[in-house]
Amino acid sequence: MLTLMRETLDLPRSLTGDGVRDTLAAIARLVPVRVTEVPSGTPAGDWTVPPEWRVRAAHVTGPGGRRIVDVADSPLHLVGYSTAFRGRLTRAELLAHVHSLPDRPGAVPYRTSYWVPEWGFCMRHRDVEALPEGDYEVVVDTEHDPAGSMTTGEIVIDGTGPEEVLLSTPVCHPGLANDNLSGVALLAELGRVLAQRPEPPRRTHRILLSPGTVGPIAWLAANRDHLDRIRGGLAVMCAGDPGAITYKASRRGDAPVDRAAALALRHRPEPHALRDFIPWGGDERQFCSPGYDLPVGAISRTPPGEYPENHTSDDDLTLVTAAALEGSLGAVLDILDVLEGDERPVSTSPFGEPQLGRRGLTRRRGGEKGGDHEMALLWVLNLADGRHTLVDCAERSGLSFPVIRDAADALRGAGLLTARRD
Amino acid sequence: MLTLMRETLDLPRSLTGDGVRDTLAAIARLVPVRVTEVPSGTPAGDWTVPPEWRVRAAHVTGPGGRRIVDVADSPLHLVGYSTAFRGRLTRAELLAHVHSLPDRPGAVPYRTSYWVPEWGFCMRHRDVEALPEGDYEVVVDTEHDPAGSMTTGEIVIDGTGPEEVLLSTPVCHPGLANDNLSGVALLAELGRVLAQRPEPPRRTHRILLSPGTVGPIAWLAANRDHLDRIRGGLAVMCAGDPGAITYKASRRGDAPVDRAAALALRHRPEPHALRDFIPWGGDERQFCSPGYDLPVGAISRTPPGEYPENHTSDDDLTLVTAAALEGSLGAVLDILDVLEGDERPVSTSPFGEPQLGRRGLTRRRGGEKGGDHEMALLWVLNLADGRHTLVDCAERSGLSFPVIRDAADALRGAGLLTARRD
Amino acid sequence: MLTLMRETLDLPRSLTGDGVRDTLAAIARLVPVRVTEVPSGTPAGDWTVPPEWRVRAAHVTGPGGRRIVDVADSPLHLVGYSTAFRGRLTRAELLAHVHSLPDRPGAVPYRTSYWVPEWGFCMRHRDVEALPEGDYEVVVDTEHDPAGSMTTGEIVIDGTGPEEVLLSTPVCHPGLANDNLSGVALLAELGRVLAQRPEPPRRTHRILLSPGTVGPIAWLAANRDHLDRIRGGLAVMCAGDPGAITYKASRRGDAPVDRAAALALRHRPEPHALRDFIPWGGDERQFCSPGYDLPVGAISRTPPGEYPENHTSDDDLTLVTAAALEGSLGAVLDILDVLEGDERPVSTSPFGEPQLGRRGLTRRRGGEKGGDHEMALLWVLNLADGRHTLVDCAERSGLSFPVIRDAADALRGAGLLTARRD
Repeated sequence: MLTLMRETLDLPRSLTGDGVRDTLAAIARLVPVRVTEVPSGTPAGDWTVPPEWRVRAAHVTGPGGRRIVDVADSPLHLVGYSTAFRGRLTRAELLAHVHSLPDRPGAVPYRTSYWVPEWGFCMRHRDVEALPEGDYEVVVDTEHDPAGSMTTGEIVIDGTGPEEVLLSTPVCHPGLANDNLSGVALLAELGRVLAQRPEPPRRTHRILLSPGTVGPIAWLAANRDHLDRIRGGLAVMCAGDPGAITYKASRRGDAPVDRAAALALRHRPEPHALRDFIPWGGDERQFCSPGYDLPVGAISRTPPGEYPENHTSDDDLTLVTAAALEGSLGAVLDILDVLEGDERPVSTSPFGEPQLGRRGLTRRRGGEKGGDHEMALLWVLNLADGRHTLVDCAERSGLSFPVIRDAADALRGAGLLTARRD
Repeated sequence: MLTLMRETLDLPRSLTGDGVRDTLAAIARLVPVRVTEVPSGTPAGDWTVPPEWRVRAAHVTGPGGRRIVDVADSPLHLVGYSTAFRGRLTRAELLAHVHSLPDRPGAVPYRTSYWVPEWGFCMRHRDVEALPEGDYEVVVDTEHDPAGSMTTGEIVIDGTGPEEVLLSTPVCHPGLANDNLSGVALLAELGRVLAQRPEPPRRTHRILLSPGTVGPIAWLAANRDHLDRIRGGLAVMCAGDPGAITYKASRRGDAPVDRAAALALRHRPEPHALRDFIPWGGDERQFCSPGYDLPVGAISRTPPGEYPENHTSDDDLTLVTAAALEGSLGAVLDILDVLEGDERPVSTSPFGEPQLGRRGLTRRRGGEKGGDHEMALLWVLNLADGRHTLVDCAERSGLSFPVIRDAADALRGAGLLTARRD
Repeated sequence: MLTLMRETLDLPRSLTGDGVRDTLAAIARLVPVRVTEVPSGTPAGDWTVPPEWRVRAAHVTGPGGRRIVDVADSPLHLVGYSTAFRGRLTRAELLAHVHSLPDRPGAVPYRTSYWVPEWGFCMRHRDVEALPEGDYEVVVDTEHDPAGSMTTGEIVIDGTGPEEVLLSTPVCHPGLANDNLSGVALLAELGRVLAQRPEPPRRTHRILLSPGTVGPIAWLAANRDHLDRIRGGLAVMCAGDPGAITYKASRRGDAPVDRAAALALRHRPEPHALRDFIPWGGDERQFCSPGYDLPVGAISRTPPGEYPENHTSDDDLTLVTAAALEGSLGAVLDILDVLEGDERPVSTSPFGEPQLGRRGLTRRRGGEKGGDHEMALLWVLNLADGRHTLVDCAERSGLSFPVIRDAADALRGAGLLTARRD
């Protein structure tokens, strides 16, 4: 994951353009990606897919001919979607177009102006402070092409049944590591891992990599007739910093993915936090808008907006560790395993406890104590009334989902549960 | 409020009589009051409106001709509804009719005997202890007039719709400040404030000032066919002491007023406490009796029965402060504002987030953080599915009701919410 | 209870046989017991009633003719249901059939092998360690009689109505005091106490004394058509140690017995603990299997499996005190009193508070405070809408069930509640 992040960190991603295309191409070297180009001007909910933005050059030359800022050094230096401009400005006139952070003078802020036509540069505050009086030559050589398109990618692992699990992350942030190239890297690797499994999953797993806000909205609008297939999902962001793993519930709050996440994280080694839904954050804002209300939660380490480096050039690769990325990936896999493995078991012998010893399911003598596996057998048998799920068994027993699922498999093998039903 | 309290503190209030009439007349100088005379003998639930009680004189003269107690000094000295008596008693015979507080020897207790015919005097215990042996001349010159009536008052602020909000407080306690002249003063001032607002409320606000127990019961019996109009209400008592504001839930426990009170008090500056319903206290006992079960809670500072001065002459104006009364009034107004302003918003753009910037609802650039107002916009939009209320938005967001309501107003102004519906 | 325990402690109880018969006979000297013999081979759910096991002799003679272990010394020495064997073994061969506790070297473990045919001895680990090399003469003279039977007992106190309350405890453990002769003694004494009451209960109280696991399963199978009569019940075990009284909820978790137990124990003097259901423990495992799902909880002091002496010879009469047994019996009686006395009161005067003073239900003068009984009157009246029970009244008021029930009786006596309905 870190390798992919290093390769793609400085690609000039935005809502549209070659930065996103090149990022998806880098992922496609690991796992197949279905790329869709959505034409500029396509309606998407309350929004419209914007013109494709291209940056040929953007820089400012100060008194004495010194190049004081240049997008060639970092995509962060130019406000996203800046309109074209060319002219000579005084210091004061220039500063009306310059964004910097007085509280964080060594960092370049990340700013965009996707929907309001304007141009601007983002600079370190200490560099802004050092600008002398005088004349500044500004070049913003950009293009907003109404005949362009917005690029989105999907990694799809086909399942055996009609339901789907959706994973999503924004792919539009340039030059920032944790928010959100870490999420892109995690889902690319997740796709690779799922695609390599020998057996297909029950449910199709669809990983959506799209520009923030308008990307998911356009995808939802285009797929509106099939959304009832979505059994659950996760929006992923900020997956690589050392903070606790944080799961934010879906708008519903009690969707299967919400219970799966709480259960899986409780049995993970890392610290974790569970939060209620709020209508702010990442792609889940769109999946959980009231017209869709999909069972999609959000997973991150430190949530976006809550660490001081967020949306600045200090959100770089020093913030992201391989261990954090691996832990986040493990957490996502554990949650997906619960979603995928859950079922409603039905006992074939519900009247009193069945005899486990006769079937080789326990080797205990009367008077000895059993362990977790035996407790799991008893829990699954006790709740196997067709109304309870394996997640219920795990929640009520305090045992992990794998221990419960293995017990269910053993009981099914011994003929004590009917064939799987969901 | 304090001025009204000073004017009316020593009026000889009781279940009936001129003390109540004069109190209502004092209020009517501030805001119109509809006065109703309910004839003695009128059935009221399990009760009957009592004969009107009049006190011409009541005093005891001790050995040596000393006047040891006289109702002319304080209405507390005579047990409420004392029957007429005239006679000469020994000290021991007299003491069988004297109530005092050994634990609070400097205070006169407040006692009534509305339903059992008897007479009695209430005295400071230290005065009782000092009574010499000898003969005592007792005069209790009272009348119980079966042709009299019970007086109740209503302050009514008409609303534009059919629903009502009910406020109620007992008006029968004589000579006691916090319990409950403070409640009377608060509701009189509330009526004045509501009546002066330029726009009429959605719901008629009805303020009932009536003698305890039998007053609300008689009002309920007389209005039994219209009680389903009552959307919510508050019984007010003990509103002027410095204790925390205490809201006691309605019998239902989850009525709109219960949630409105919890929400409003959470955002008030004063300390506050929330309590479950108990069938003891003030007028809410009648509104929340099982046959009516109205959505009426109770608000006070220190609840009746929980402060040591309660039901004694020490419950005087030194216990009541203008700041406490103002805070209580503010709390009641805030609760009523939630009840009045709540609605179920419906988004006109529920499929993904609508574009706030285009409508001038946010001035943020991408990458900057929003404040409470912007979070409120997102919460209202997210929950505007016709199933959630603005109170739901406030509860889930942690934001105050005014912040949420202002956001709903802004969204409605921008065409993002349909017209108000409730 | 201790006397009965002393009398019966060393009877050779097992799933079948004269040990159980003699234990039931000892109980029958205190209270009538209906004894049922279930023939070996009878199907019982997933199980079959086993052959009757008889032990004529079982001992091992070591080098030098020393008798190293003999079932005549304690029934614990022979693994329950040991098959017959006679032979000369080396020390190593013998040890493959010997069970001991390295962590508790002075105690004999309790082991059974009801369903796997094998033989074995249970010894103190320190005695095992001291065994010399040499030849050992083993005699296990046992019989498994397919023409025998399993013995169960029922103590039945007939009720006036069709519903039943079920109490159950296993009667198969030999030579162990707390687990579970204490439960047997408690239920025998409970039966005696209930049988001596002057009035029959509303509900038949049925006390089942049967061998563990297969006993309740056989009883359930035989009574399958009548189980809907069971209003509630308790499985009793480990009732005599000094631990806190522990109530484990039924599988349903919110059955009347669950609320009754929580309420009754809250007002008992002993410390107590409430636990959720788990499918491990005593007879409740069968009553709460998914095919039956009966409203039966479990009560104990320290639950089985949680004290170090459990299932060893150290679980002897020094662990059991008369005070603990009396407290456990009191707790069971209190829970049964709640179940038996609960009802849904209906007020005859639901519109406002009825006048208590006129009916002699209160002697308070206005202004004085009431006590628990008066609060109970108000609570019952307030909740007497036919939807709430007396248990609801007790839970919401914080008052004990007897205080609430007495208030309901007083109100019914005064005509303020309709006749009892349930």
